[in-house]
Amino acid sequence: MKKRLAECRVTVVGLGLMGASLCLDLSQHTLCREVRGVARRTDTVLDAFFAGAVDLATNDLYTGILGADIVILATPVRTIVHMLEELGPRLWPGTLVMDLGSTKQTICAAMDRLPPGLQPIGGHPMTGKETAGFQAAEPGLYRGAPWILTPLPRTSPEALDLARELVEAVGARPMVLEAERHDRLVASISHLPFLLASALVHAVADTGAQDPAVWELAAGGFRDTSRVAASDTRMFLDILMTNREAVLDQLERFGQHVAELRTLLANGDEEALQAKLAISQQARARWQGRGSGDQGIG
Amino acid sequence: MKKRLAECRVTVVGLGLMGASLCLDLSQHTLCREVRGVARRTDTVLDAFFAGAVDLATNDLYTGILGADIVILATPVRTIVHMLEELGPRLWPGTLVMDLGSTKQTICAAMDRLPPGLQPIGGHPMTGKETAGFQAAEPGLYRGAPWILTPLPRTSPEALDLARELVEAVGARPMVLEAERHDRLVASISHLPFLLASALVHAVADTGAQDPAVWELAAGGFRDTSRVAASDTRMFLDILMTNREAVLDQLERFGQHVAELRTLLANGDEEALQAKLAISQQARARWQGRGSGDQGIG
Repeated sequence: MKKRLAECRVTVVGLGLMGASLCLDLSQHTLCREVRGVARRTDTVLDAFFAGAVDLATNDLYTGILGADIVILATPVRTIVHMLEELGPRLWPGTLVMDLGSTKQTICAAMDRLPPGLQPIGGHPMTGKETAGFQAAEPGLYRGAPWILTPLPRTSPEALDLARELVEAVGARPMVLEAERHDRLVASISHLPFLLASALVHAVADTGAQDPAVWELAAGGFRDTSRVAASDTRMFLDILMTNREAVLDQLERFGQHVAELRTLLANGDEEALQAKLAISQQARARWQGRGSGDQGIG
Repeated sequence: MKKRLAECRVTVVGLGLMGASLCLDLSQHTLCREVRGVARRTDTVLDAFFAGAVDLATNDLYTGILGADIVILATPVRTIVHMLEELGPRLWPGTLVMDLGSTKQTICAAMDRLPPGLQPIGGHPMTGKETAGFQAAEPGLYRGAPWILTPLPRTSPEALDLARELVEAVGARPMVLEAERHDRLVASISHLPFLLASALVHAVADTGAQDPAVWELAAGGFRDTSRVAASDTRMFLDILMTNREAVLDQLERFGQHVAELRTLLANGDEEALQAKLAISQQARARWQGRGSGDQGIG
């Protein structure tokens, strides 16, 4: 029995940037039968309801999920894992259980422990911004962004179809990947950049401690390179702790390239230095040329 | 005898992004008596003239500077140094000699070797973008950007005033700094980010060599953190080679912070990891809050 999104009650748990933006899209275009939002803080519950982001808002998780056809967990990664453990026995058989977490292996393992009647599927929309919280939410956040889906062996084709329908309904592009492969790839293009940005801000702050004028001079180069360092640290701590091996691998690889650039510069080996810089210059320009540069934030 | 910008013939040597954008501003608002542009390539000479960026365009350096009251060198750093050596004997006494180079110590040392009648002053507008060349030029590029001025002991107060007038005329904010201090600060907020961005692109390219899907997933986090890696490598090679010690210091400092983050992650020391991430998160947010984030690109 195939279910369509239009017939579904959708509950989004966690009304931060990602969850609330999703609610706004689902509500504004009446893409499903009902949109419910669950938030921890009463402020957020009220804000979400009065902003028209949801049909029903509550800070009671069990009220929120009662009778839902699709439950989407949109909290930090390890909160998702805890919620999956708690929620399992309370969900209707056949419920599609999705999430928006930035790492997938830990979450998919927890999803696999859900009672057999449920239909879990991991997900990670490659969009966002460094400002967190309900106030930062906006309609259209998902438009054009890749949205990774990581189905489990137990996920039915119908559940995968429904998940795809939801992803496409908000304008994102579904991409099916294995959880392990997802985690390896995002370690490279999302978690590594975050750590570098943090280390860069620390290095500039060291300079600033001796000469505060550095903050006045800092312009667009620093702004963009360091932007993701302003991301929510609680969220990123969960990401890093649930993708440790892959992130450490990437840091190692990155460290080798920094060391090589350093040596070439220290030795004044101009030809090799320019050659190495030209490789990254061209790779970056090629990527931008593909149009991938117009996406949101991963 | 105090000279005003409105009475001056201004010659800009080098019609890439920075030089041509400056010409556009000077011409469009008729800020000076005449704007001349000198470019190496005939294409650029023609483009600049027919775009109305200059009153006179030439690829003959000596024709370009003949009778100029202000000469602004807008080429890569080491080309500026060579030109200063060549130009000295050919300039009128009293000419204000400026530059737009991204490092200042090497240039100011070469400026100090100019014949005594000339008025040299180093400069570095903290703006730009990663696309280089005449085609990337745009009016208003300098608006709101800090523009460092590094006068020499021999620079007269009148020459400094005229330089300030020019900087303010295109909407930038003049900031007087010593060359050595300038170079130390920009190593931190501009040259270090460039090297990190290059190393990041190399690390992602390594991942991409094994799994090209990484380029499809790369979104805004990668886009912004790596953006400056697309900068002109010839220009950056000059920058790095003329600011080696300061850049190596910054790389060292940065490396220590990366190593610390790595160790905390490897050891699963969550509390200390979150504390360190929170420091950079707050420092970055504080900087953005100052409004400095709205500037151009350094």
